[in-house]
Amino acid sequence: MSTKKGKIGVLTSGGDAPGMNAAIRAVVRTGITRGYDVYGIRRGYNGILHREMDLLTFKDVSEKLQHGGTFLFTARSAEFREIEGKKKAAEICKEMGIETLIVIGGDGSFTGAKNLSKFGVNIIGIPGTIDLDIAYTDYTIGFDTAVNTAMEAIDRLRETSNSHERCSVVEVMGRSAGYIALWCGIANGAEEILLPEKFDNNYDALLEQIHKNRELGMTHQIVVNAEGVGHSDELAKKIEDATGIETRATILGHLQRGGSPTARDRFYASMMGAYAVDVIDQGRKNRLIGYKNGKLYDVDVDEAFAMTKSIDEYEYEIARVLGTRE
Amino acid sequence: MSTKKGKIGVLTSGGDAPGMNAAIRAVVRTGITRGYDVYGIRRGYNGILHREMDLLTFKDVSEKLQHGGTFLFTARSAEFREIEGKKKAAEICKEMGIETLIVIGGDGSFTGAKNLSKFGVNIIGIPGTIDLDIAYTDYTIGFDTAVNTAMEAIDRLRETSNSHERCSVVEVMGRSAGYIALWCGIANGAEEILLPEKFDNNYDALLEQIHKNRELGMTHQIVVNAEGVGHSDELAKKIEDATGIETRATILGHLQRGGSPTARDRFYASMMGAYAVDVIDQGRKNRLIGYKNGKLYDVDVDEAFAMTKSIDEYEYEIARVLGTRE
Amino acid sequence: MSTKKGKIGVLTSGGDAPGMNAAIRAVVRTGITRGYDVYGIRRGYNGILHREMDLLTFKDVSEKLQHGGTFLFTARSAEFREIEGKKKAAEICKEMGIETLIVIGGDGSFTGAKNLSKFGVNIIGIPGTIDLDIAYTDYTIGFDTAVNTAMEAIDRLRETSNSHERCSVVEVMGRSAGYIALWCGIANGAEEILLPEKFDNNYDALLEQIHKNRELGMTHQIVVNAEGVGHSDELAKKIEDATGIETRATILGHLQRGGSPTARDRFYASMMGAYAVDVIDQGRKNRLIGYKNGKLYDVDVDEAFAMTKSIDEYEYEIARVLGTRE
Amino acid sequence: MSTKKGKIGVLTSGGDAPGMNAAIRAVVRTGITRGYDVYGIRRGYNGILHREMDLLTFKDVSEKLQHGGTFLFTARSAEFREIEGKKKAAEICKEMGIETLIVIGGDGSFTGAKNLSKFGVNIIGIPGTIDLDIAYTDYTIGFDTAVNTAMEAIDRLRETSNSHERCSVVEVMGRSAGYIALWCGIANGAEEILLPEKFDNNYDALLEQIHKNRELGMTHQIVVNAEGVGHSDELAKKIEDATGIETRATILGHLQRGGSPTARDRFYASMMGAYAVDVIDQGRKNRLIGYKNGKLYDVDVDEAFAMTKSIDEYEYEIARVLGTRE
Repeated sequence: MSTKKGKIGVLTSGGDAPGMNAAIRAVVRTGITRGYDVYGIRRGYNGILHREMDLLTFKDVSEKLQHGGTFLFTARSAEFREIEGKKKAAEICKEMGIETLIVIGGDGSFTGAKNLSKFGVNIIGIPGTIDLDIAYTDYTIGFDTAVNTAMEAIDRLRETSNSHERCSVVEVMGRSAGYIALWCGIANGAEEILLPEKFDNNYDALLEQIHKNRELGMTHQIVVNAEGVGHSDELAKKIEDATGIETRATILGHLQRGGSPTARDRFYASMMGAYAVDVIDQGRKNRLIGYKNGKLYDVDVDEAFAMTKSIDEYEYEIARVLGTRE
Repeated sequence: MSTKKGKIGVLTSGGDAPGMNAAIRAVVRTGITRGYDVYGIRRGYNGILHREMDLLTFKDVSEKLQHGGTFLFTARSAEFREIEGKKKAAEICKEMGIETLIVIGGDGSFTGAKNLSKFGVNIIGIPGTIDLDIAYTDYTIGFDTAVNTAMEAIDRLRETSNSHERCSVVEVMGRSAGYIALWCGIANGAEEILLPEKFDNNYDALLEQIHKNRELGMTHQIVVNAEGVGHSDELAKKIEDATGIETRATILGHLQRGGSPTARDRFYASMMGAYAVDVIDQGRKNRLIGYKNGKLYDVDVDEAFAMTKSIDEYEYEIARVLGTRE
Repeated sequence: MSTKKGKIGVLTSGGDAPGMNAAIRAVVRTGITRGYDVYGIRRGYNGILHREMDLLTFKDVSEKLQHGGTFLFTARSAEFREIEGKKKAAEICKEMGIETLIVIGGDGSFTGAKNLSKFGVNIIGIPGTIDLDIAYTDYTIGFDTAVNTAMEAIDRLRETSNSHERCSVVEVMGRSAGYIALWCGIANGAEEILLPEKFDNNYDALLEQIHKNRELGMTHQIVVNAEGVGHSDELAKKIEDATGIETRATILGHLQRGGSPTARDRFYASMMGAYAVDVIDQGRKNRLIGYKNGKLYDVDVDEAFAMTKSIDEYEYEIARVLGTRE
Repeated sequence: MSTKKGKIGVLTSGGDAPGMNAAIRAVVRTGITRGYDVYGIRRGYNGILHREMDLLTFKDVSEKLQHGGTFLFTARSAEFREIEGKKKAAEICKEMGIETLIVIGGDGSFTGAKNLSKFGVNIIGIPGTIDLDIAYTDYTIGFDTAVNTAMEAIDRLRETSNSHERCSVVEVMGRSAGYIALWCGIANGAEEILLPEKFDNNYDALLEQIHKNRELGMTHQIVVNAEGVGHSDELAKKIEDATGIETRATILGHLQRGGSPTARDRFYASMMGAYAVDVIDQGRKNRLIGYKNGKLYDVDVDEAFAMTKSIDEYEYEIARVLGTRE
């Protein structure tokens, strides 16, 4: 195996997301094929600071693709958050001969990478977060799996809710973003969807609507509530008190982070891992890998940080049309 | 279709459980085949009191088998709980010509049935509860599905827990019984299992054990906590405070009640529905259908209520052997 | 409910695909909301010829979203294939007052629709096929579910293959297109992928590669074979004879068509159903609904038929890089 | 870790079955806890002959429980089948100090074990086969998972079959036993079930029944055909030719062997692994571990071989009652 092209380090950082293993595997195998040595760094940026890294072979990444989580582990690093930590990390990378660092993570991890790049380490970012809250890309690793996991849980809730003619409040993840909630809203045919980007805290209108739908013959109702709106237990109580409909809250929690990745997460995580290596191979520096307009692309890290995105108005309107009996 | 043998009513009562639809379907189809008219009664005992019932055909129960919940709906009935309610229900049954009532539900529903039988309605019980907490039977409809649902959720938690090297507290259903927790404990290889029948509230010993296991090299740990022990959020905080290990709690909640039934729940719910009709056909009265010593059987309702059951000591010991590094 | 805007008919045609029910539901609910009467036509074009159609209400499409298949049924129609059949269908539509027909199906169904439009019925197409083989769109209803179904089956095969250190040939659907095979190839980390668009019938090279990979330490291998290449049983025999590696073939077959749709199929099938109604509402005629460049769009039916598409070269290259040891 | 009690070897043999890993893990962890050294032997009896074995630690069996297949691999051994092979295997066991060998496998593997025991190796068998065709036990590792896998595949087939108003022939595994077919028959509500133990090759009666059911309004039908009956493609053709109903055959094949084990398979495989060690610890020799009358038990290997079992008549009757209209 030729090693003349140099050394690439790869790490996962921040919250884990199903598909990260597929991305690491693709980085390793494409890297080896293109002529690089690839080092797996454990526990995020901490792994650089503590020199926890190993050269990975083609076989080391066998049987990883189908598993959720990240076999490199992930962690938050207090030391790396400081400027001194970043300087030290850059020095260790240079000392080890790691010219390029591939960081698989979310916005927070990319901020760290961007700042690290100022100390002379070439960084390449791959978006890995179930929350889909990264502006420059329409796809992030783990979102598809998380949505399917939440959707299947809500399918189950609907069956029991239906049998008891109840209302169910179900809280899905997403931090301050409502993408998982919007998708579950449509995929589960939720009667109500509360998104942090959209919900105006008008609980009276919400309770009125739930009451009206029941009058119009809906015998059970699902309220998908985003983590960013929160307070699901209180909301359930409010609904029961105001409408007399038996109401239960379920907070899906961390199970949304795990599980064997979907085909889509395995496919695009693999493609992004390979593409990241090819961006390096083509000599581009400090780029983030994304998926936009139906294509893989890479963008300068500073440009990417200047972008914004928001909930699609048409999708949100249709979610409400489909769930609300007029 | 001959109707000379009389009329059977069937209802579901109490909490729903996956497989109830399979049982109803089997009652209807076996009932018709054996020469009975079968009436589906909606919303549990309420449906008798409000005369919400319909003659069901072979085709009416098509495409029900594979769905969780109960298409007859279920409810708790305040009126039926009173002696007057039971008297009225018995009168309506007689008036409608319903000689035998098949009740699919748990302990509470069977108590209602037992008392109803005193007013001259023949009652047959089929055990339907995810909690497995009915003494006279080793099998209850829904337990197998609920355990598999919880197990899959905990598999997901383990992956993300592992990536973050966390401790996870996960609360599973079961009311005051620990069967779901014990099964998940073994099926998920949980490091700790807290059952209401066994846990002595010695939190110090628990925290000590978690700490010791981490020292011995366990990088993540799952604590399966039964609903009957509860207080999962407090427990997670206790663990994090005492051991310094990042700990998260997840309360799985009502999603454990829903979902397409497993093969086992479809199979035995079907067999019990058929068996219940055959018990009627053989002229036995006021019997509960059970599964014990590897066989379907029926038992007098008063005898059944006199039985007790408890967590198997060997299973509990092995659960601990497998999860705890000595 | 206002009906002043006219009548829309909706049908499913050709092979069924998971998500079709979500699309029908969205057509009905968005149609009603926008002021249309929506008629569900049963058994594809046959249903027009035999006047099998009913006005659908908001409630009629409840509890359909989560189920595979199509509750309107689907069929091929010999009569409609003839010019006389199309003329008759157009006359019946006019007689019934159905100005616009929404056809959910694949290429064949769209050809029928295109020709029907020449007799004065406005037609709108929604792409529904698990094969993804429709040129003008990057998304077709059912592909995502079919790929996930196939992928999960192949995950299972890999486990047993691995235990026995076997080679497994697995044939996936797709008719003459290799998209399902390519996706499974990447998602399952297949060692070999045979696509009708790419495979040059050089079996010697294939056998050589399988042999070489085994020599290099691969203890089991998955060959994903597309339906369009076929002959999986013969291929398994060839491999076993040439390499001495125990080899088994599995043809996944029609189970790839069924199952509860994934979140993605529910989401985009719903959005396309709604969008189709809005295209009608905006007065556009004879359009096909697609998803391209990351967006929903509509295109003239003749234009759409002029487009072509092919397997992405980079995706195919990476599939091979990831599966083949240097 | 005390090692004074001696050495146990554990191997998996014959066809793999989901849950075998759980059994191995339980043997290792219970063995260590009870004071034994446990050696994992690779590739069945071959691993003894080639001395492929390693001492296993508590940690070596981490993260195995939830995976199908067997991490010890499995194989058939031509050499061991000969008397000389068994003699040699016994000698190697003695030389290595392995007094007891735990064999996880089916009938064929137990025959091997029985004969090996004659050369002075204490053998303990744990029933591992998806076919359930072992007379002395009501439970075998893998059956529950295989039935659920087949059932889910057939659920999918039913949806697409229903949409097309087809007949589907689906062939499930089981070798010469019909247990998987019987269970799927009931769990999937199959209209017809062909078991090797019961089917009298009266195809005319079968075709007549399918035709009659269609006349009575069944718009689609599932025929579950056991591997031991076979010829599914021909059967599909026969049905289509005789009845005019479009009919498709699917042979589920090896995917039924793989997949993450169900809760039941993880639970009882774990309990049997632990129980096997405790049988050794209590000094019993040449025993097979089983589950009968609702309990774990152990039985002398010769006694076990003298037992027989057959399809339950009542279960078979009810399967037919539930699937056949009046």
